[in-house]
Amino acid sequence: MMRYRDAGVDIARADAVKDDIGRAVQSTWTPAVRRLPGGFAGIMRWPGAGGAPLLAATMDGVGTKLHVGLAAGRAGDAAADLVYHGANDLLAHGARPLAFLDYVAQARLDAAVLRDIVSGLARASREVGAVLIGGETAEMPDTYLEGVVDVAGCMIGAVAEGAVVDGAAVRAGDVVLGLASAGLHTNGFSLARRVVAASGLALDDALPGATGSVGDALLAPHRWYGRAVLPLAEAGRLKAIAHVTGGGIAGNLVRVLPAGVRAMIDPRAWRTPPLFRWLCEAGGVPLDDARRVFNMGVGLALVCERGEAEAAHAALAAAGETVYRIGAVEAGERGVVWDDR
Amino acid sequence: MMRYRDAGVDIARADAVKDDIGRAVQSTWTPAVRRLPGGFAGIMRWPGAGGAPLLAATMDGVGTKLHVGLAAGRAGDAAADLVYHGANDLLAHGARPLAFLDYVAQARLDAAVLRDIVSGLARASREVGAVLIGGETAEMPDTYLEGVVDVAGCMIGAVAEGAVVDGAAVRAGDVVLGLASAGLHTNGFSLARRVVAASGLALDDALPGATGSVGDALLAPHRWYGRAVLPLAEAGRLKAIAHVTGGGIAGNLVRVLPAGVRAMIDPRAWRTPPLFRWLCEAGGVPLDDARRVFNMGVGLALVCERGEAEAAHAALAAAGETVYRIGAVEAGERGVVWDDR
Repeated sequence: MMRYRDAGVDIARADAVKDDIGRAVQSTWTPAVRRLPGGFAGIMRWPGAGGAPLLAATMDGVGTKLHVGLAAGRAGDAAADLVYHGANDLLAHGARPLAFLDYVAQARLDAAVLRDIVSGLARASREVGAVLIGGETAEMPDTYLEGVVDVAGCMIGAVAEGAVVDGAAVRAGDVVLGLASAGLHTNGFSLARRVVAASGLALDDALPGATGSVGDALLAPHRWYGRAVLPLAEAGRLKAIAHVTGGGIAGNLVRVLPAGVRAMIDPRAWRTPPLFRWLCEAGGVPLDDARRVFNMGVGLALVCERGEAEAAHAALAAAGETVYRIGAVEAGERGVVWDDR
Repeated sequence: MMRYRDAGVDIARADAVKDDIGRAVQSTWTPAVRRLPGGFAGIMRWPGAGGAPLLAATMDGVGTKLHVGLAAGRAGDAAADLVYHGANDLLAHGARPLAFLDYVAQARLDAAVLRDIVSGLARASREVGAVLIGGETAEMPDTYLEGVVDVAGCMIGAVAEGAVVDGAAVRAGDVVLGLASAGLHTNGFSLARRVVAASGLALDDALPGATGSVGDALLAPHRWYGRAVLPLAEAGRLKAIAHVTGGGIAGNLVRVLPAGVRAMIDPRAWRTPPLFRWLCEAGGVPLDDARRVFNMGVGLALVCERGEAEAAHAALAAAGETVYRIGAVEAGERGVVWDDR
């Protein structure tokens, strides 16, 4: 998947047509749309007398993690990750999930797979506090390959106008915290599947350097960070939040940095989990490439004031997250630099 | 596509698993969800101090109309219909469109097709008053057949709590109005494509009994009824609204009827358009089947008080709709009956 981003809206698009598409998308915008940097979700005013929280919404697909889920008989677990993915996208702007709608399509509907998928979506929705208020199932033998399934979903949430997290206040001297991921989450599966296929290992085989199987490592659920992060975000204690998806830590953190600052990321601040180390070694994937595709063990990056960092760190850890102090913000050209000294 | 419906939520599901799926879906519901009959869209309270309009949302796919659009080089027109479809689904509960999010997936992204699709989505979104606040494009060669595309979309809207249209007030003596459709809209394409294929006609050939081509008739845009209908709905002058999609007039109108009443539909109240007549004749489709699959020329059915019917009829016509008085509500077992006497 390729993501196209412009101010305020995160839209996955092919690079070749992104300008045309961006113009078409923006032709629909009204002053109700909040144009904000980062664009993990679209945000706009809610109608009415005023004072209501803003609408936040995002659309995603599960991507090829579903293939691994199907192969392991765990399509529902892969589908659940779509909910976590969308919820964390909203979280990047401080929004709280409210409702989820799904689209499930196959060449021919497989009742067991469909049941498993909706059950997984429901379980994850309960966990993030969203209600399943709509869905559509399509059977299209002229569109889909036999035996596979695609799932897309729209996560809708709300954020108080004064609580939108957009990175605008990030300044030199701020601290970058990272929350441990559970594995690949929902990104990098095309590359990971190629590495697994070339390695000759089956999903049931033990993952070298780890305790579980390859399949367990690949299908570890996408973590939901809202329980720990929303209280801090709603209290105004976080300046920026980046959901680490396709593009890796740097590619996503840069989305929420203002001009004139860069983030230095210290890779020694955390230990790269065995799955990522194995994928790099077994697949001969250069480190730079791996960092652009995989989250490398950090699923959410947060920026806060230096004086706030210790308290935020402690609050996040107390809420059950594994927290690393992964970097610092300094003056410089807008960007994210891996500090490999 | 098969639709699964339960109180308050319209979810397309295979019949075989609908109970399990319904239980899973409802396991996510909170008291914020408004359980309403009909279920063209999901509706729930918006958070905050109160008084804000309710959230209404629906997810849909374009279905096989896209194949006809692709074959005619008009994928954007077919995609636009997804927006009209979702907007009319919201309209069935009196909700006004606010925002749309799309999901576009192909085996390999075709830049021209993608540009055409997003351009069509944007045009239709402007028309219904929705902003495109998010989208995702996926390239999945292991999931999709080559050369085709699938598009799904989520329409988000709002409706004042006191203005939700749900059919609960429908009584014997009420009048059923029908608004003319522009053609198939987005339903019945699997059957229509079979009929066209068997007829030997090409999309460029003239449609027997009509002035345009077969392709033009099949791809006529799904009408958006909101401009005419929302002012009446928001003024509380409509008791029920049914968006006529898969299931036809009867299958959709029944969704918004309360217990103890049935609607008698008079098929002589309007002239079945040439496209539907040709599909029935060329395809040897029995009338009962056609009525269950196609809208037969009526894209939206409205129920209002008898004393209100003339004024509503006039207001809708003045707003540009072709209006038919297609039936009446009487006491009886809940249902919709075609009055073929």
